[in-house]
Amino acid sequence: MDVISVIRTKRDRGELSDEQIDWVIDAYTRGAVADEQMSSLAMAILLNGMNRKEIARWTAAMIASGERMDFSSLSRPTADKHSTGGVGDKITLPLAPLVAACGAAVPQLSGRGLGHTGGTLDKLEAIPGWRALLSNEEMLNVLDGVGSVICAAGDGLAPADKKLYALRDVTGTVEAIPLIASSIMSKKIAEGTGSLVLDVKVGTGAFMKNLDDARELASTMVELGTDSGVRTVALLTDMSTPLGLTAGNALEVRESVEVLAGGGPADVVELTLALAREMLDAAGLTDADPAKALADGSAMDVWRRMIAAQGGDPDAELPVARERHVVTAPTSGVLTRLDAYDIGVAAWRLGAGRARKEDVVQAGAGVELHVRPGAAVVAGQPLLTLHTDTPSRFEYALQSLEAAYDIAPAGTGFSPGAIVLDRIG
Amino acid sequence: MDVISVIRTKRDRGELSDEQIDWVIDAYTRGAVADEQMSSLAMAILLNGMNRKEIARWTAAMIASGERMDFSSLSRPTADKHSTGGVGDKITLPLAPLVAACGAAVPQLSGRGLGHTGGTLDKLEAIPGWRALLSNEEMLNVLDGVGSVICAAGDGLAPADKKLYALRDVTGTVEAIPLIASSIMSKKIAEGTGSLVLDVKVGTGAFMKNLDDARELASTMVELGTDSGVRTVALLTDMSTPLGLTAGNALEVRESVEVLAGGGPADVVELTLALAREMLDAAGLTDADPAKALADGSAMDVWRRMIAAQGGDPDAELPVARERHVVTAPTSGVLTRLDAYDIGVAAWRLGAGRARKEDVVQAGAGVELHVRPGAAVVAGQPLLTLHTDTPSRFEYALQSLEAAYDIAPAGTGFSPGAIVLDRIG
Repeated sequence: MDVISVIRTKRDRGELSDEQIDWVIDAYTRGAVADEQMSSLAMAILLNGMNRKEIARWTAAMIASGERMDFSSLSRPTADKHSTGGVGDKITLPLAPLVAACGAAVPQLSGRGLGHTGGTLDKLEAIPGWRALLSNEEMLNVLDGVGSVICAAGDGLAPADKKLYALRDVTGTVEAIPLIASSIMSKKIAEGTGSLVLDVKVGTGAFMKNLDDARELASTMVELGTDSGVRTVALLTDMSTPLGLTAGNALEVRESVEVLAGGGPADVVELTLALAREMLDAAGLTDADPAKALADGSAMDVWRRMIAAQGGDPDAELPVARERHVVTAPTSGVLTRLDAYDIGVAAWRLGAGRARKEDVVQAGAGVELHVRPGAAVVAGQPLLTLHTDTPSRFEYALQSLEAAYDIAPAGTGFSPGAIVLDRIG
Repeated sequence: MDVISVIRTKRDRGELSDEQIDWVIDAYTRGAVADEQMSSLAMAILLNGMNRKEIARWTAAMIASGERMDFSSLSRPTADKHSTGGVGDKITLPLAPLVAACGAAVPQLSGRGLGHTGGTLDKLEAIPGWRALLSNEEMLNVLDGVGSVICAAGDGLAPADKKLYALRDVTGTVEAIPLIASSIMSKKIAEGTGSLVLDVKVGTGAFMKNLDDARELASTMVELGTDSGVRTVALLTDMSTPLGLTAGNALEVRESVEVLAGGGPADVVELTLALAREMLDAAGLTDADPAKALADGSAMDVWRRMIAAQGGDPDAELPVARERHVVTAPTSGVLTRLDAYDIGVAAWRLGAGRARKEDVVQAGAGVELHVRPGAAVVAGQPLLTLHTDTPSRFEYALQSLEAAYDIAPAGTGFSPGAIVLDRIG
């Protein structure tokens, strides 16, 4: 087996054999295949595709590169959720304790933000004392005792994916659906969850800009999960507008706590409940009532115990940014568009996100929305408040907001789009 | 300017701008763009192509990465030839002194063999004392004094190409016509020749297996040369059968000297004269008579002076391999096919070529042909003689000859194909 023949097979639109895939993933993980060879192969995969059989084998080879976790000792059925990433997407925070309150065990291995999309771990780290890094044993203890845990994935899980993801990030090969699907699913299958709900985002603020690409990615992942014995379903959800009224770390924790307290923005509540119902159905808990668990405080109770179990103080004051800047409406009328990507970039530039993995994020930075599309606005009223500890960042953040919204003449009709666009599985 | 946006442009089938091309070639040469980024871009170029404007700029950027030579001080017009590589292709050896004997200056920067195709420098190094490495000043002195020089290209010429070629070799991106064309032409244009004849090989023993690909490569190179002020013409020539009766280093030198002495195989003489006429026309020497220069010994005289000027002894005995093995005809009939690729691989396995750049070649190793397609053969008569210093190599070489020839029943019609298949320019 040699790497040139593997690259040539895919370059010339052939199907990679099981042996070729197993060999190249293993050899790359060991360092016997060089970065410049794997990036050439990744570009050939991006441009020439992989079929279902190849993607399944590729995923299996990535799983085989590391350890697998096992939740079979738990008395509850496991349910996990994965979002492909968006702006203001704090859903994991209320969702995990909510689904746990309804009877499932929710092992939520999460990531950090890179680029304009936020990261769940960055958000939770805004809570004083809270720790993202747990050993496998600690994780299992929190999961068993509380019902849900949100923590960083260990290094032992799919190391091939870790190496390949970092390579794709610097070689223009991130946007390959077979590689995105196998990257996500290798970690989820290795994690050992019994069921999985995928939240595939579509729109300007998402990775997938159109419904066709999102549907292809969702179908590919649902097939991969199903073939591996994980009950998998995907919702395609809108990410042309930010979720809720906040994008930023502490800002989003505050909004999540509002949702757990029975309040919060309608769209966040709607999507949280939709995903909770899917997770509970997939876990076989069809009689559970997530709306009730939000209303009666039982989800909030799990949240408080989960935060405390990971060293956090659920009653602590959350960090607040030192400086604010208010963006006001230039004219009166109806707000018809508020762009998720532009808001995400602004929050990132204010300090909520990182440009490189080693950057430190500001807990208090971000963007607060005062109105959402459909609202009537009056010239001079606040549209957005920008938060940061470093006021020198305002100008750069404001540049990304120059074309972030549209205000139409008063009386212009506006029909809000659905949040859940499609369901696959 | 950043490399990801350059990669994305080509990945998404866009046209690279002049600024993107200049930047990426310079940054790669400096080490600011990593190998894994350039290989990803090379694969995108291989799969999505480059247009004429992009290829011209890419070539110009590679030329700009190093020094340019200048032959304007010579009293004679310069003429160069480049072959895309084949089996038994010793044409440069008789051709360079022949064209010099007819009045042109022939600066022939040549390479070493890699894989199944031989290298001109390896062949000449079979001559005791002969040196391939000359300084620019030495090269100009030989060229001025003798009329022709065959030597290695200096490190200063198109260093970007040198680095990129080595990368393409290990990343499955050699077979990109825009990159092959710019690689060859950047060196030839930087070398500063006034005219250039390209011998684009087609067939099993060549890089281009079919006429369409060869024609595309030839047209691209002729356009590049013409646009840079080099009078350029290309011949498409057959490489389905080895050229002449030898493939191997000393074996091919001996055959070349036969041609210079007025003998030699008819196909080698025919192609040498065809290329000589093209070179002389391109150099403006339309009245020259290369057939006469072969017949009257003036080409041989230049050969002897050229070899001596580079330290070689033109009268020295050439190395002979210690061991031989004769392959005989299994049946009687008409030889209808003798495969160039299979013969090339056999010669390589016998020690005439190298698998890695650092390998040493055997001067005496190779394959001698006793018949060519069209010949009547009798069962048991010798078809090929294999030469090597290491008899353990015979078995491996014989494996590559198992399907190397066809013998049809006696009386089967056979019409030999033309050597020159097309002319472009």
